[in-house]
Amino acid sequence: MAQVGIIMGSNSDLPVMQEAIDVLKGFDIEVEVDIVSAHRTPEKMFDYGKNAHTRGIKVIIAGAGGAAHLPGMIASLSPLPVIGVPVKSRNSIDGWDSVLSILQMPGGVPVATVALDGAKNAGILAAQIIGTSDTCVLDKVIVFKEGLKAKVIEAAKSIK
Amino acid sequence: MAQVGIIMGSNSDLPVMQEAIDVLKGFDIEVEVDIVSAHRTPEKMFDYGKNAHTRGIKVIIAGAGGAAHLPGMIASLSPLPVIGVPVKSRNSIDGWDSVLSILQMPGGVPVATVALDGAKNAGILAAQIIGTSDTCVLDKVIVFKEGLKAKVIEAAKSIK
Amino acid sequence: MAQVGIIMGSNSDLPVMQEAIDVLKGFDIEVEVDIVSAHRTPEKMFDYGKNAHTRGIKVIIAGAGGAAHLPGMIASLSPLPVIGVPVKSRNSIDGWDSVLSILQMPGGVPVATVALDGAKNAGILAAQIIGTSDTCVLDKVIVFKEGLKAKVIEAAKSIK
Amino acid sequence: MAQVGIIMGSNSDLPVMQEAIDVLKGFDIEVEVDIVSAHRTPEKMFDYGKNAHTRGIKVIIAGAGGAAHLPGMIASLSPLPVIGVPVKSRNSIDGWDSVLSILQMPGGVPVATVALDGAKNAGILAAQIIGTSDTCVLDKVIVFKEGLKAKVIEAAKSIK
Amino acid sequence: MAQVGIIMGSNSDLPVMQEAIDVLKGFDIEVEVDIVSAHRTPEKMFDYGKNAHTRGIKVIIAGAGGAAHLPGMIASLSPLPVIGVPVKSRNSIDGWDSVLSILQMPGGVPVATVALDGAKNAGILAAQIIGTSDTCVLDKVIVFKEGLKAKVIEAAKSIK
Amino acid sequence: MAQVGIIMGSNSDLPVMQEAIDVLKGFDIEVEVDIVSAHRTPEKMFDYGKNAHTRGIKVIIAGAGGAAHLPGMIASLSPLPVIGVPVKSRNSIDGWDSVLSILQMPGGVPVATVALDGAKNAGILAAQIIGTSDTCVLDKVIVFKEGLKAKVIEAAKSIK
Amino acid sequence: MAQVGIIMGSNSDLPVMQEAIDVLKGFDIEVEVDIVSAHRTPEKMFDYGKNAHTRGIKVIIAGAGGAAHLPGMIASLSPLPVIGVPVKSRNSIDGWDSVLSILQMPGGVPVATVALDGAKNAGILAAQIIGTSDTCVLDKVIVFKEGLKAKVIEAAKSIK
Amino acid sequence: MAQVGIIMGSNSDLPVMQEAIDVLKGFDIEVEVDIVSAHRTPEKMFDYGKNAHTRGIKVIIAGAGGAAHLPGMIASLSPLPVIGVPVKSRNSIDGWDSVLSILQMPGGVPVATVALDGAKNAGILAAQIIGTSDTCVLDKVIVFKEGLKAKVIEAAKSIK
Repeated sequence: MAQVGIIMGSNSDLPVMQEAIDVLKGFDIEVEVDIVSAHRTPEKMFDYGKNAHTRGIKVIIAGAGGAAHLPGMIASLSPLPVIGVPVKSRNSIDGWDSVLSILQMPGGVPVATVALDGAKNAGILAAQIIGTSDTCVLDKVIVFKEGLKAKVIEAAKSIK
Repeated sequence: MAQVGIIMGSNSDLPVMQEAIDVLKGFDIEVEVDIVSAHRTPEKMFDYGKNAHTRGIKVIIAGAGGAAHLPGMIASLSPLPVIGVPVKSRNSIDGWDSVLSILQMPGGVPVATVALDGAKNAGILAAQIIGTSDTCVLDKVIVFKEGLKAKVIEAAKSIK
Repeated sequence: MAQVGIIMGSNSDLPVMQEAIDVLKGFDIEVEVDIVSAHRTPEKMFDYGKNAHTRGIKVIIAGAGGAAHLPGMIASLSPLPVIGVPVKSRNSIDGWDSVLSILQMPGGVPVATVALDGAKNAGILAAQIIGTSDTCVLDKVIVFKEGLKAKVIEAAKSIK
Repeated sequence: MAQVGIIMGSNSDLPVMQEAIDVLKGFDIEVEVDIVSAHRTPEKMFDYGKNAHTRGIKVIIAGAGGAAHLPGMIASLSPLPVIGVPVKSRNSIDGWDSVLSILQMPGGVPVATVALDGAKNAGILAAQIIGTSDTCVLDKVIVFKEGLKAKVIEAAKSIK
Repeated sequence: MAQVGIIMGSNSDLPVMQEAIDVLKGFDIEVEVDIVSAHRTPEKMFDYGKNAHTRGIKVIIAGAGGAAHLPGMIASLSPLPVIGVPVKSRNSIDGWDSVLSILQMPGGVPVATVALDGAKNAGILAAQIIGTSDTCVLDKVIVFKEGLKAKVIEAAKSIK
Repeated sequence: MAQVGIIMGSNSDLPVMQEAIDVLKGFDIEVEVDIVSAHRTPEKMFDYGKNAHTRGIKVIIAGAGGAAHLPGMIASLSPLPVIGVPVKSRNSIDGWDSVLSILQMPGGVPVATVALDGAKNAGILAAQIIGTSDTCVLDKVIVFKEGLKAKVIEAAKSIK
Repeated sequence: MAQVGIIMGSNSDLPVMQEAIDVLKGFDIEVEVDIVSAHRTPEKMFDYGKNAHTRGIKVIIAGAGGAAHLPGMIASLSPLPVIGVPVKSRNSIDGWDSVLSILQMPGGVPVATVALDGAKNAGILAAQIIGTSDTCVLDKVIVFKEGLKAKVIEAAKSIK
Repeated sequence: MAQVGIIMGSNSDLPVMQEAIDVLKGFDIEVEVDIVSAHRTPEKMFDYGKNAHTRGIKVIIAGAGGAAHLPGMIASLSPLPVIGVPVKSRNSIDGWDSVLSILQMPGGVPVATVALDGAKNAGILAAQIIGTSDTCVLDKVIVFKEGLKAKVIEAAKSIK
């Protein structure tokens, strides 16, 4: 059963969001992926936000660009932690619009925002959240971090 | 019967939005005013957006601050022209968040955005829209513009 | 008879502005297209702004880049609703100049601003404005929005 | 036993961070509060980051201003989810420095960033994370959201 | 006979623009001062721009705030050098709108832009322009610059 | 004898600055061109600024990028009007550094700033300044502006 | 004999720059303080930059606001390390102009830039530079850093 | 024995940082180069910062991009002067994140920040710092600056 729901406003966001899918697969965490547009399919978004927690989803990752309302609206509709990925879409003003319209949520309705196009980190954060109650995942996070370290050590050797 | 619906995300937006109410009253255009929060009352927002045009509303003015999703979501839900007023709320990053999260809507779902805290202009724009099919209102817009001119001429005299 | 006047500051804006033309044609709304430069043909701009409403134009769409004065000046000269399209021209500072010089109009003279290079949305907004008094166009807007939805549903299927 | 660790770079951040403490108390979630400066007490930060998860902390909230390195460094040192609160400190450049130095973490080390001075939302997000494995807390989150709604409904009545 | 025309979009700009008047009086250069609003008195602006050079004006200083179109439109209408003063008006987004909508003029129509609220420098620049053909004014500019130097030397003494 | 001195901080600025040279040649105004670096040849800059007006130069155009100090330093050293051209150099932060370090001069020392990479406008502005005392040049400016108009009219025909 | 030269563009910068003076006095490092304006006393600046190293100055701290050319010009004239302090002066655009015109120096002429209004850090950095060849000062830097730590520990106690 | 330690957060920063290595080699100053990631190898960073001064390093150059914590953390851990190079990495928001998270250090812990991607200047600055106690290096800096001048003189000849 999927523990993480990954949604995005448009299929043009998929190349960015794929990193979240991949990293979660690496942690053996099941995901479901869907396209849910705040502005073009508001009813679907409503259903998604209202029901995700009732079918076992624990964390939602939502990516969108420009005036990016999907993460914040899902956060409004769901009691689950929502991770927002600002996507630097075509016509975005250098990504500032995506970042600010996801980050600057009003008091009461948080979105856990990651870096511009930071879908990989969204996946890791979802794993860390699941790891708060699943020591097996927590251990994998610890191992993952050791892996980051090893790669740097390796790179450091190569430039000497 | 109200022709313009004026909604805002919080009653703290009222001092800014009052200018839209006042200017429309000056044009003898009936308005209805409500607080509709995208993030705290999403169901009410849904109903509002879906039904406004069915009860005779012709234009919707929506004001919000920070990650301001109300204008864009209403534009998603309603076939009516939606005018967005970016409000410079407390904790806003100098208003950039309000402006960009209202202005930068994706292709397919426009919001007619006015200046930061520009509720007065939102009201005038609503009147102009109604004026496209109501020559009486169009005439009032023309008179209003003459009034702007007169005030400048007056001020110019006083500094000489 | 044209109901929407589409003007732009330079023929280099045409690739962006073409989307407004196309979308309005899709709504069977007649448009007239012209190049009117605020800075190079101020007299023509004056005539355009003063007279558009007298020959049946109901909405004006004006696109310009850099220090973009065309939309605001037309709004100053005409009682019609004016939609401004900030164009990200060559030498523009990432589009910020176009956006701010169109959006931040003083009280009294609104411009309905859409996203950077958002000519498609300008066209849709013009249709929505005409739809406030033309139920046939309003119905087409509703159908258009259903079409947006259908495309997302299709895309969602394809990624599953 | 504390489930949420709340740390900040300076006691001048306390007025902002207090909102996180208060909202978590409202959810009956035990917190521990400390001042940990990335730049002035790096050893303490190191110990904090390395050990928080071993003594039962499930989520860390870290607030800092200017070149705000505390949230990112704690995220580097701990396998737990880290929530970053950008604080608009004295001498900050309008908060942009705080926001960007917390948000823009490199791939591999996420920080769940909330709005500028958004400590209240950090607290709610921490509760939502704990709610992923504690249905009692999840229920409180659902009730909390109903409360947000009720306040808007109340405010809407008062302006009519 | 006035050699420098000083115009501004609103009498609220006068406190800023007064510095230009004062500095030019210090150079014994005659000025005329007027309020000319691009958006509220476009016809007056047209006349002003078209005729200023015919009645002996050599330089025009134009100040405006927000979406500031006055300097650029005057530059469009007049063959004279136009100096633009971006005014940080109420509701301006930190002055960026004023600066960019005056500075970023398209090729063919320059505006000599000075700093935000830099009316004093606009006055000095006008004097320098007149000084290109009036050695008496040029000499006064040289003396003025010596005066700047003297004040710094004085201040330097006082802190030692 | 050259009436306009055109200087730039580096020969990499020449492709941008060439437009100023060309436009002034079109007005039959003699120019001298030199490379003068504020940071690499400060003595040469000093000499240039101190002496330009003594050998008949009437206007100086200075182009530079990044932390662009050449225009402001020349304005400090010379009593002549100085036109600054912000150049978007390699490593510039989108041109903001060039623009702000030329535009935001302190009271007492103006630089007439034109748009980013706006060397063409710098040339026209120099011609306008010379035109304040040379009716032959003023007439050429008037003709030049008619030419701008003609090109737009032509372009307008072609899109109909 | 003074080892650190502290200069600023205007006596209005003194309240900010005083922190550099104070912190260096705390390290028992002798300073000389002067007002040197790039734009109003260019000759004095020239002399200062050319000669500082010949009379025993080892590090120069230069503070300035707006289009801040003093630090970069001194760096151009002197072989010594130059520390630049961007001052948020009146009329500055939120400090961005000061920061960018000091930081973004071209290749060949570095300025060691510190935070906006960061004169205290400029003083500490000067001490660290002197400490590279003076172990007594290096030891004081180490002690200073321990002091920072102690204050945080103290503050941490007080909030528990 | 190396006098300058050059570290960077990732081997992808090497193309930028190579300029610092090259310029220091030109001054015959020995460097050591390493990859030290604040976020992926915090322990290594800790050791590096704590020990660099004990093995003869006099200046540390640290380059990083995005939320760039390496320079500031090293400055926190070491008593040596630390030069920070903001690197415009992939996914950086136009370099603003790198610049602000390095520049805006809190009082007590300076980082000598150079321009975006300004590694060459970081190298020169390191040489200048060493030159404060090594007249041989100081002389080389003076010669280096003469070389900059000569290149400009040469370029100036070629465009005449």
